[in-house]
Amino acid sequence: MTDLSRRHLLAGVAAAGAATALTPFAAPAARAAVPAAGAQAPGFYRYKVGAYECTSINDGARSFPLPDTFVKNVPKEEALAAAEAAYMPKGMVTVPFNPQLINTGGKLVLIDCGNGIANFEPSKGAVGRTLQNLAAAGVDPKSIDVVLMSHLHPDHTNGIRAADGSMAFPNAEIMVPAKDWEFWTSEDNAAKAQSNEMMKNYFANVKKIYAGIESKVTKYDWGKEVAPGIISVEASGHTPGHTAFVVTSNNSKILVQSDVTNIPEFFLRNPDWHVAYDVDPVQAQATRHKFYDMAAAEKALVVGFHFTFPSIGHVEKDGTKYRLVPIAWNPVI
Amino acid sequence: MTDLSRRHLLAGVAAAGAATALTPFAAPAARAAVPAAGAQAPGFYRYKVGAYECTSINDGARSFPLPDTFVKNVPKEEALAAAEAAYMPKGMVTVPFNPQLINTGGKLVLIDCGNGIANFEPSKGAVGRTLQNLAAAGVDPKSIDVVLMSHLHPDHTNGIRAADGSMAFPNAEIMVPAKDWEFWTSEDNAAKAQSNEMMKNYFANVKKIYAGIESKVTKYDWGKEVAPGIISVEASGHTPGHTAFVVTSNNSKILVQSDVTNIPEFFLRNPDWHVAYDVDPVQAQATRHKFYDMAAAEKALVVGFHFTFPSIGHVEKDGTKYRLVPIAWNPVI
Repeated sequence: MTDLSRRHLLAGVAAAGAATALTPFAAPAARAAVPAAGAQAPGFYRYKVGAYECTSINDGARSFPLPDTFVKNVPKEEALAAAEAAYMPKGMVTVPFNPQLINTGGKLVLIDCGNGIANFEPSKGAVGRTLQNLAAAGVDPKSIDVVLMSHLHPDHTNGIRAADGSMAFPNAEIMVPAKDWEFWTSEDNAAKAQSNEMMKNYFANVKKIYAGIESKVTKYDWGKEVAPGIISVEASGHTPGHTAFVVTSNNSKILVQSDVTNIPEFFLRNPDWHVAYDVDPVQAQATRHKFYDMAAAEKALVVGFHFTFPSIGHVEKDGTKYRLVPIAWNPVI
Repeated sequence: MTDLSRRHLLAGVAAAGAATALTPFAAPAARAAVPAAGAQAPGFYRYKVGAYECTSINDGARSFPLPDTFVKNVPKEEALAAAEAAYMPKGMVTVPFNPQLINTGGKLVLIDCGNGIANFEPSKGAVGRTLQNLAAAGVDPKSIDVVLMSHLHPDHTNGIRAADGSMAFPNAEIMVPAKDWEFWTSEDNAAKAQSNEMMKNYFANVKKIYAGIESKVTKYDWGKEVAPGIISVEASGHTPGHTAFVVTSNNSKILVQSDVTNIPEFFLRNPDWHVAYDVDPVQAQATRHKFYDMAAAEKALVVGFHFTFPSIGHVEKDGTKYRLVPIAWNPVI
C-alpha cells in the first residue's frame, strides 16, 4: 500500500475532516491551549564579507494587484504567468525590500534605508520595517555613520526620515549618487515630468524628503571608494545615477546590485523585460546583461534590494535568461 | 563609461586596496566603532496553514567533507559537481535540519526534534539548536503536547533528550511510526547490522535515546489522523517506517515530506541518486518520484527537513528531474 497517489492523498484529507467530529484530540483540561504568536520572526540575517560583518535588513514586502503596465514591453498575461510561476498570490505581484548594513570595523554603513516608518501600516503593505529590524538586530540608529543611497526612489530613500519627520539616523552622513541628485532636484526635469503621474510623484518625493537637509547631502561619483572597502559602480538606466556597490574585505567581496533588477522572478528570469519604474529601460536592460554576465562568470555573491529576504544569492546563466540561486541559510556567521 | 565590465570591476577593487592607505574614512574620534555582533538571527519562521500557526524551527546545519559514498550510485566527482553547482563550500556538503511546530489551536505538535542539544558544539557542527530557537520563538518546551517522529534516525529523534539526558519536552506524548519502532528495536535486526558501522550506530542510538521510556512511546500507523488535522502518509524506503505528513486546516494544506529527499540540491534535482542513509534506496527512489509528481501536480507547499531554512517551497518537474522553488519570506503572517 502506498498513500502517495493523489487520489489516496485527497481521500486522506477527506477522512481527516470526517475524523474531526470523532477526534480524540481535544485539548486536555489540565493545560490551556497555547495562543498563536501572531507575529513573524525578526527580519535580519548576518553574513561575513572578509572581516566585515554584514546584515541584511528586511524593510518588508508589498503584495499588490499586478498593474497593467508593471512590465511595459510584454502583455499583462505574460507577466501574470511569471507571477503564477513564482507562486505569488493569484493576480498579484510581491515586491520585497532589503537594505544592507555593513560593519567595516571602523564604520557602520547602511546601504539604502527602505520605505520609511510612515508607511508602516497595513493599508500600505507590510513595509517600513527597517528601524524595527535594526532594533531586533541590536543596532542603534544613532550609531550608523553613513547612509549610502543607491538612487533616489522612495522605497530606497524615504527611510532616512523617522515617523515624526526627524532624521532616523541623526549622526549619519547621507551620500547620494551625484547624477541622481542632479536629475531629481532639477526644476526643469520636474516641470517636464508633470504629465507623468509616477515621475511627478518621484520628483515631489525627493523635494519633500530632502527638504532642509539639501546642504548636508554628500554627492558621490562612480568608481570611487565611497566608504571603507565600498566602491560605487555605475549601473544606470533604472535612474540616471543608479549605482551598484562592490564591498571588499580581505579577499572576499559581494556585489550589491541595488535595482539592476526589480523582482528577479520577472526581470532576472527575463532580463529584456522593462519594469515601469525605469527612467531609461533600454539602458537598464543593457546594464542587467552586463552585470549578470559578470556576476555569473565570477560566481559572485549578489545582494538584491528586491530579492526575497535574506536577499542574497548567486546568478546563473540559463540560455538567454538568468536564474537566481538563493544562498543557504547559515545558522552561525 | 560603464563600470560593469569584469576588467573595470577588478581594477576598481585594486584601486580600493590602494586607496586604503590614503583613506579619509578613519572612525571619528568622537564615536567608538560598533563591535561585530558575532551571532546569527534566531532561526524560526512562522507561516499559516488555514487556522493553524506553524513555525519552522532551525536545528542548525552541518557542513562536512563530502564522504566517498554519500551518494551510493554515482561517482564521487558527480556528487562534488552537484555540491559545487549549489555553491556549497569547496569539497564539502551542507545538510540543514528543520523540525516543524504546528499550533492547531488545541494542540502544540512538534514534528521531529533535531540532533539534540548534546550535539550543540562546534566540533559537531552548528546543530542541536531546536531548544534555543524554540525559546527565541517564545515557545516553552513544557507546552508541547505531541512530539511526532517521522522516523528514528538520530538527527530527527535525539532532540527528545535535553543536555542532561532528561526529557526535553516533559509533557509531550512521543509518537513514532509503528514500522520504524518494530525495525529499529528488533534485536535480530540489530545483530544482523553489526558489520555495517552506520547501521550498527543507528540501532545503538535508538536503544540509548529511548532507554527507560519505551513503554511511554505511542506507535502510529499510516493513513491515520495522528494529531488534529495531521495525517500520517507512508513514504517508506529511507527507513521501513519513514513517514510524511499532510497538515490540513480549513482549505489549506502542506506536505511535510520528512526525508523523502535528503538535501534537495542532490536528491530532488537527481531523484534517482541514492543517499547513503537509505535502508532501501530503490524503494526510497520510487517514493521520491511518486511524492514529487503528486506535489508538482497539486502545486502543493512542501516542507523538507533537509531543505535550507525556512525549509518550505514548491516542487516543479524539470524533465526527468525536479527543482525546488523556495517560498518568498513573508514579513507578516
